[in-house]
Amino acid sequence: MAVAVEFAKSPAAVLAVGSGFSLVDVDPASTPGYSGAKADGQALLVTQDARLKELQEKLFAEGKFGSNKRLLLILQAMDTAGKGGIVSHVVGAMDPQGVQLAAFKAPTDEEKSHDFLWRIEKQAPAAGMVGVFDRSHYEDVLIHRVHGWADADELERRYAAINDFEARLAEQGTAIVKVMLNISRNEQKKRLIARLDDPSKHWKYSRTDLKERAFWGDYMDAYGAAFRKTSTEIAPWHVVPANKKWYARIAVQQLLLEALDRMALAWPKADFDVAAERGLVADS
Amino acid sequence: MAVAVEFAKSPAAVLAVGSGFSLVDVDPASTPGYSGAKADGQALLVTQDARLKELQEKLFAEGKFGSNKRLLLILQAMDTAGKGGIVSHVVGAMDPQGVQLAAFKAPTDEEKSHDFLWRIEKQAPAAGMVGVFDRSHYEDVLIHRVHGWADADELERRYAAINDFEARLAEQGTAIVKVMLNISRNEQKKRLIARLDDPSKHWKYSRTDLKERAFWGDYMDAYGAAFRKTSTEIAPWHVVPANKKWYARIAVQQLLLEALDRMALAWPKADFDVAAERGLVADS
Repeated sequence: MAVAVEFAKSPAAVLAVGSGFSLVDVDPASTPGYSGAKADGQALLVTQDARLKELQEKLFAEGKFGSNKRLLLILQAMDTAGKGGIVSHVVGAMDPQGVQLAAFKAPTDEEKSHDFLWRIEKQAPAAGMVGVFDRSHYEDVLIHRVHGWADADELERRYAAINDFEARLAEQGTAIVKVMLNISRNEQKKRLIARLDDPSKHWKYSRTDLKERAFWGDYMDAYGAAFRKTSTEIAPWHVVPANKKWYARIAVQQLLLEALDRMALAWPKADFDVAAERGLVADS
Repeated sequence: MAVAVEFAKSPAAVLAVGSGFSLVDVDPASTPGYSGAKADGQALLVTQDARLKELQEKLFAEGKFGSNKRLLLILQAMDTAGKGGIVSHVVGAMDPQGVQLAAFKAPTDEEKSHDFLWRIEKQAPAAGMVGVFDRSHYEDVLIHRVHGWADADELERRYAAINDFEARLAEQGTAIVKVMLNISRNEQKKRLIARLDDPSKHWKYSRTDLKERAFWGDYMDAYGAAFRKTSTEIAPWHVVPANKKWYARIAVQQLLLEALDRMALAWPKADFDVAAERGLVADS
């Protein structure tokens, strides 16, 4: 039977983008900080679900009692890299009542008539909540850079605006976990073909995925630039190797657990006289 | 080992509020349509998770391909009856990406300046989605009736407006599942005391729960009136005995499964040439 082997090194430490980071040096098939095999990792994922759920409930409870703490997970990736799997298998273990999920598609006409952060701000998690961005404001410095929809000056403005925005979220009590799921170009091909080979997956296949795939190198450059400009102390990027789905899931789960642990969460103390209240209920 | 005993009778049939229904005739500790014990029911809940998840994914997939089908679960109950447990343990099994959860609290000043359905309409599920209302527009004919915040004429207007609203949702492709979780007055007392006895549950205890508890009989009357006025063919009420949490969970799970089964969902057919696309991906 598989044992829930734990991480030997903290993913927050080994996956964080620091100075001198280069995306091409990361092997998308590697499992940094983790020596277990697939079955061990799958066992770990299940084992940690309960801890994740309890921490999230404590965060929610604190929010009800005036704490401003909250968590924001930002997911970016090339198509098929497994954002949906993270949402379903990692985020899905938490209580839906405490999760605010926002999937950012191509902006509407109304959204386009505002600054790019306008629609993002509206989805910032409330106190006590776990916010999850499936794509985010980073699209405005990724796909926009790749296709030249924003020039160099505008990109610089956006990087700075993003850093200001995230600093403000952090000041409001938001722990920000930024994740790029990193698959190889060849792994994406395998996954696109797998979607085509399974009729129950045809609905997930989009012809635009293939169009964007042609710009792979430009995307890697855009990610590299985004990391250099926006991997800050309060909101560092983490590049998670994602060719092995099981590894990406336990790595992101661990990043969330570590972020929640750092919040030093506790069950709120009753703001009423418990014994007196007990008497009132008993007599009611 | 517990076996996943199935329902002998469809919950949609045995729990539906029909003509001549009387709330006092329902035993909150009963398990209508189900002969299994607690362990059997718990096993059934887990067994059916995968089916619920697959049906919900099909609904989501159809939504992406132009179907207007969607599902709306409306949950109403006295405090501590287990709405949160339904959301966590039944709804929580579905993919967060396909679920739109709305918890309706006391209305804000802005919401109060509009008709009572204004804030509700905004939360109606989009095509392909499963909407879940934790409390709902029914508060406006329940707590408002109990405390006399709406007079008899206004209540009549609201019942009619609710029926029109729900008929319109149904015309738009919404399958509506209305559930009242029915606990006994004594079970509520036990649960309030249990919250007080467990420091990790103190944050869930609200002194207003005790205030509303004093109006128990008036609430039962208000529920009875709401059932008579708004249990329609397209959106019938179901009264789910909820003293046994495990029963309430499998009953609601089954109501969702039956509603999804009636939609005759299927994986969307590819709107592109699969073989041609496969060739393009292989060459990319």
